[in-house]
This record gives sequence, structure tokens and C-alpha cells, in this order.
Amino acid sequence: MHKTISALAALSLSVSAPAVMAQSSDHADIALEKDTLAWDFVEGITTEVGPRQAGTEAEKRGRDWAVAWLKANGFANVADEPFEMETWVPGENPSAHILSPFPQPFVIAPLGGSASTGGMGITAEVAMFRTVAELQAAPAGSLNGKIAYISHSMTPTQDGSQYGFAGPARWVGASIAAEKGAIATVIKSVGTDYHRNPHAGGTKVVDDMIPAGALSLPDAANLERMFERADGRPITMKLVLTPRDLGTTTSGNVVGEIVGRDPSLPPVLLACHLDSWWNGTGAFDDGAGCGIVAAAARHASAAGQPLRTIRVLFAGAEETGLWGSKAYSAAHRDEPIGIGLESDFGADRIWQIQTNFGQSNPALAAKLAAAVARFGVAPSAQVATGGADIDISRDQKGAIIDLQQDGTRYFDLHHTPDDTLDKVDPVQLRQNVAVWTAVVQVLANEAGPILGTAGAAE
Amino acid sequence: MHKTISALAALSLSVSAPAVMAQSSDHADIALEKDTLAWDFVEGITTEVGPRQAGTEAEKRGRDWAVAWLKANGFANVADEPFEMETWVPGENPSAHILSPFPQPFVIAPLGGSASTGGMGITAEVAMFRTVAELQAAPAGSLNGKIAYISHSMTPTQDGSQYGFAGPARWVGASIAAEKGAIATVIKSVGTDYHRNPHAGGTKVVDDMIPAGALSLPDAANLERMFERADGRPITMKLVLTPRDLGTTTSGNVVGEIVGRDPSLPPVLLACHLDSWWNGTGAFDDGAGCGIVAAAARHASAAGQPLRTIRVLFAGAEETGLWGSKAYSAAHRDEPIGIGLESDFGADRIWQIQTNFGQSNPALAAKLAAAVARFGVAPSAQVATGGADIDISRDQKGAIIDLQQDGTRYFDLHHTPDDTLDKVDPVQLRQNVAVWTAVVQVLANEAGPILGTAGAAE
Repeated sequence: MHKTISALAALSLSVSAPAVMAQSSDHADIALEKDTLAWDFVEGITTEVGPRQAGTEAEKRGRDWAVAWLKANGFANVADEPFEMETWVPGENPSAHILSPFPQPFVIAPLGGSASTGGMGITAEVAMFRTVAELQAAPAGSLNGKIAYISHSMTPTQDGSQYGFAGPARWVGASIAAEKGAIATVIKSVGTDYHRNPHAGGTKVVDDMIPAGALSLPDAANLERMFERADGRPITMKLVLTPRDLGTTTSGNVVGEIVGRDPSLPPVLLACHLDSWWNGTGAFDDGAGCGIVAAAARHASAAGQPLRTIRVLFAGAEETGLWGSKAYSAAHRDEPIGIGLESDFGADRIWQIQTNFGQSNPALAAKLAAAVARFGVAPSAQVATGGADIDISRDQKGAIIDLQQDGTRYFDLHHTPDDTLDKVDPVQLRQNVAVWTAVVQVLANEAGPILGTAGAAE
Repeated sequence: MHKTISALAALSLSVSAPAVMAQSSDHADIALEKDTLAWDFVEGITTEVGPRQAGTEAEKRGRDWAVAWLKANGFANVADEPFEMETWVPGENPSAHILSPFPQPFVIAPLGGSASTGGMGITAEVAMFRTVAELQAAPAGSLNGKIAYISHSMTPTQDGSQYGFAGPARWVGASIAAEKGAIATVIKSVGTDYHRNPHAGGTKVVDDMIPAGALSLPDAANLERMFERADGRPITMKLVLTPRDLGTTTSGNVVGEIVGRDPSLPPVLLACHLDSWWNGTGAFDDGAGCGIVAAAARHASAAGQPLRTIRVLFAGAEETGLWGSKAYSAAHRDEPIGIGLESDFGADRIWQIQTNFGQSNPALAAKLAAAVARFGVAPSAQVATGGADIDISRDQKGAIIDLQQDGTRYFDLHHTPDDTLDKVDPVQLRQNVAVWTAVVQVLANEAGPILGTAGAAE
């Protein structure tokens, strides 16, 4: 990329090349061509730690590993800031068997926060619902003693927008089914792949929680075919799900800094989360995100100490309720953040930049758009709202940027056993680091208030 | 396809169109456009039966289902011919955990015929070998008390030829490791996908059998990275594999016939196998194959009763030692078969036809090549040797045809939990049925000896 730009410049851009291109290109281009930091992070944490279920000893090992990695890579003020949380663990050997009319085993995973069937399991007739709306329309008491099965339709999309469409089956399906009398809920995994790997994920926790699990998509399709072939015979399932609540445990947020020249300026906050569901190794979700932001912080300061401090926040316990993000905001709400950004949508290429200061600080928004254009990133008029790990920026009503990644295959991997290092494409990972580096380089050297005249934080 | 051929014929082939094209096209073309029989078979058996581990009650349900299906679809002389076999079952909840230096769980499946670790499992240091040859070169006793890990390299190929290259890790790895003193063996799955679904499959059974399992490819890659990152520290694994031998049980071969006009002519035998490994639903391996041969038998006789009898053989217990194929040959060796063909390589398109009578009966070989050319199937000079389920044709030194399917993605699915109906592409499945129909139509109406002058069987 660097060579191509240079050649083009020699041909046609040599006189009028925008200053911003010369200013921001060097370290971002090095990141695009040669970065190994982000890869080292995600390879290291998936290999040396693996799954990092929120609130557990495995997550603690992840934090220890990340603290050591940040120190080894030149970050200052590295800390593991503890917080307390309510911890749910999935138990061992979940199973779902169709007992009649077509006996066979299915592959299932318990949903985060759901209840146990007990080790002996429960056996009941399955009632099928195509959508959450259909379930919602079922009369009260109509599911007494039954297992509710909820399907949905989900299509891969670049912007991940189908998650909002399909997600409610997982988010609220079990609580609605429980209201109707169901003794358990199984859903088609909220995902877009066809592998025998169910997608975990949290479900709404209510007072009378019932057991709830996600079937892999091939198993869900099989169950739906059974309804077509059963000629009205009841379909009976035995379900064994043994998650449990551990009560209050301690998790933590790992932070580190590239200290800026002017400590009076609010820092640039780059966030991700360090925990993962138990069933994968947290490569795409979100080891890659932590690798990207840490690598960008290093590359953006490679030319010299930045004006503002760059802080990375590897939030703890995102998956089971955004515990780390909330704890970080509660602990630091009175310390103004200049701007918050988060990487938590896999490791595929960034295609769009959104800000929440296009109106209030159009000059900076334009400067950022120019800095990332050559990496194939287009500006958007949509107002950035930030991700799960930057509650503090929303709570402070501060500046936010969303760097939108290609999510086309994200829901093939999201919350599954298949979230492993081999899914990370090193070329696309480097594009992420290059874009982040270009953006952070601009932000960390911005003297004026980032949110502009309407800024509340600065 | 039918319309395209017709249009071409009108333009340029109207006078000289080979007779064989007119003769064999109709029913094959109907199969290509409209066949639903093969799909109905594979959808039905995967939905209503599911996994069919050799020698078990689940396989018996599969046979009962297949007998009913053949009768419902107009086959005569349908029978379930019993035989006895030694039955191995995989046990429940296999697990592999790295205990140090990088604790995390791996996904593993026991290899067919391997021994149990006992429910408490075994814990030992892992010794890595890149190839079977490297393992073979290890000194006697050098693996005492250790777990041998065997890697290999496998590339997807259209003809599946890499199976012969990578397969020995599974076929003989455990027995060689045992000779060197190993107490267990884990291998990288013999497969080409990167999902957390280990590939099952048989391993050589020896007197002092040790526990043996296959890791999913992402887990195998992770283990290999651990060796790179361990700086010489030992890598310790806990392995729990609890397969067991059930002793002698009864399995069976399901047969059915389209009876020919001339019972004195040896039948055309179309084979597949009905059993599957326990972990998938046997869609690609080999429900689709049975659907293809049964559908072809029906379509090839749709124009009227064929000259020769067409017999389908749904062999039992192929996966754990070709028990059904051997039993069928032992029971029927004295009843000449005109020709044997087998479908057991998934459901993707056929690209090549091989025979073992290109020299002895070139006219028939040419006729067959002409009949399938329009479906994109090319003749090959390679001599067909047949598949696992037509031992009888080899034992009788009879005629054999191999219709080579595209195996590029076969080893993504082979022997894995991912072998489910959604992997079967209905368009490619129909191409298979069309090619088989064209071939069977020619063979079942062939009056002369199929193997030609050199024929031993007829």
C-alpha cells in the first residue's frame, strides 16, 4: 500500500498531496505492512490462556497475562483494577436428546444466566415458535410443562444489523416462555453458520429463571424437519443443563497508558474486552480487539510522545453483563475522557468511520476521514454511539468514534467453540491496526476539545 | 439441461446425434431436473434416525427405516440380511485438558477401536511428532509413560488423494506409539476444516490397544503453538476417553431389487453403506450415497422393466471394519454379479468415470462415457478398483465402475459432527442421480457380458 501511494504521488499527486496524508501516513502504513503486535497479542492470549469466562479463575489468568504483555510492550501505569460481580458458570456436558418420535442427540449450550435442569435433566414435549412475536402471542398457561423452542431468521450482514432482528430469541425468549408456563427453552442459535457448534450468549435474568439453551443451527434445522415429519405426534426432548451461580466473585479491568506530553488534556481511551465465553478461546471476540487497540496505541506513538495520553482499557466481564465497563465508569466518571473508541466486532476489515462530532467539530471529523480514506474506510453521517466497553464516554456525554468492521462472518463465529485463532486473517487484522493507528495518531495530537463547541466532557 | 441439449441438437446435431444420447438421456435428464427421491432418502434418514453407529440399536433403526423406505418406493425382494460383528462404542463426554503450562480444554473424539482411559482419565506429558515417519523413527521405550501427539499435513483435493497421505496418522499412529511405550495417542484430525469438530474414524486394533483420540484442527494448531511458546517446559495433558467393546452384536445388510426381465443375467449391484459414526448424522457419509443409488435404480427403470435385475445394497457396519461388505460377499459369493458400483464419497458432483473393462470391453466403456459426457463427466484410463462396500465384485473378479465425485470439501465433513443434511447441495445431488441413472440404464439393459472377453464373473 505504501509503495502504491508513493508511485501514484510521483505521477500525479506530488504538488497537491494533502498535508494530512503526509502527516498521518507513515506509522499507519508501517502497521499495515509489518504489524505483528496485534497478532502476537491474540495468538498469545488464545494459546497461553484460552477461554476466559467472566468472573472465573481463567479470566484472572487472562488479566495476569495481559498485564505482563502490556508491561513487556512498553505501556506505563499498567494496572488490574478489581471490581465485584455476580458470576454464572455453564456446568459440564450439556445435552439434548430427542426421545420420540425420532430419537437422536442434539448439540446444545446453556445460555448465560439460565437455570439448571439438575443432573437428571427434564423431559417434556417441545412446542415450536417461528418467532418471538409468535411466542409472545401464545396464551398464558399454554406452555405449562412444555419446552418452548424458538426459531428465527438471521442473515449475514456487513453491519451486523441482523443481530438486532434475531437476537431477541436469545435475549428475551426464555423469560417470555417462562411467563407462559414453559419449564425450559431451547432456541436456534443466534448465528449464521452451519456447524455443530451452538452459540452461547446471555439471556435476560428474571426471578423465576428456567433452564435455557441454544441448539446448533444444523440441530435446529433437524428439529424443525421433525415437526414436519411427525404428523402431529408430540416431539419429546430430554434436556440436561447444569449451569450454576457462583455468587459474588472478583473480576477486573486491565488498563495501561502511553503517557502524553500534556497531562492536563483528557486522554484518548481505546477499549475492548478481555473475557470470553467458556466455549471458545476468545480470538475474534475479543482478543483481536485488544490486540488491535494495543498495537494502535504503540504505533501511533512511535514517532514520539503524543500530546495526549493514550489509555487502553481491556474491560473484564463484558459477556455476562458489561460488568467491567460499568465498573470502570463508576470508578472514573469524574476524570474526563477526551474520546472513547472500542474494537469488539472481530478482526475483519474496517469499512466505515462514524463519529458523534460531525456537526460540532466538522474539521476534526474531516481530518479523520481523510486519514483513513486510503485504507478503504468511508465516512458516514450516522452518529456514533459506541460499544459495550465505553460506558464512561456515554456517561460523560463525551466524544465517540465507531470504526465499523466487516461483520459478514462475525455471526458464524460469535460465542461459539469456533472462535479460535485460525479465524483471524492476518491481512485484515493489519488493516484494522493501520486504521486505528491513523485515527489515534490524529486524536492523540489534537490540542483542542475533540467534541468541539458542543463538547460536554472537555 | 434438457432444453439446452435440445436447442443445440436443433442447431447442429440433428442429423448426427449419437444414438446413445437419445437412448439414455430422457430419464437421466428427468433425474437432473426433478429428482426428489435421493433427497427424500437422505433427509428422511438423517431426520428420523440420525447417527447410526455400527452394530448398535441406532443402526438397527436405520435398517428398519431403510427397509420401509425401499418397500414404499417400489423395490422388490427387500430384506435385512443379518450378520454378526464385534462392536465398539465411543462412550460419553470425551475430554482433553492441557494442565500445564497453559491450562485450557481441547475438543477430542475417541478413535474407533481404541481403548479407554477409565473414567478418571490419565495425565501425562505430550511428545510431539510432525509425521508418522518421525514417530516411527523414535527409539523403543522413548515414549514410556507419555502421550504421543501426531500431526500431519492434509490438503483438500478433488480426488481425495491426500487421505492416503494423511490417513496413516489415524490408521497406524496409535499402534506405533504403543510399541514405543506411549500410554495414549492424540492425533490432529484427519480432515481439512477448521471447526471444533474432531474427525472420528477407525484405528488399527492391536493386542495391547491404548487410548487414542483425534483433536479438532483448531485445537491441534493450538497444541502446536504451545510447543513453540513453552520454551522447553513439558506440556501436560489430561485425557478422558471411555469407549468400550460390546462384544458380538448383530448388524445387517439391507437389500432391495428392481427385478429384470431376464433372471439368468447377473444383476447390476449398486452399493453404499447405511451406518455412520456416532457423532454426525451420516448425511454425506453415506446417507446421500444410498439415496443416490436407490434413486438411480428407480429412474433407470422408469421407462420399463430393465433387462437385468438392479440390486441395491445398503451395507451395514462399514465404518468399523467393512463388516457388511465382507458378510455380503461371504453369503453371496457363488451368485454372480454382473457389475458392482458404489457411492460413498459425499454428495458433490461426479467429474470422472473409471471402469475396469476399458481393455476387455471397449465398446461398453465408450457407450458409458458417451452417456455421461453431457453431465460434465470425463472418462479416465485409470482402472476402477471399487469401494469398500463391493468386496463381492473384487472377490468375484467382476466388472467395476467408479464414478468419481468431487471430494474437495469431503474431508471438511467426513466423520465429524458436521456431517448433517444442510451440507448436501440439492443441485449437485441431482447431478449424481442423473449420472448414475444414465450409467445404470446402459448397464441394466446390456445383454452381453459386461466385463467382455476377459470377464471372469459372467
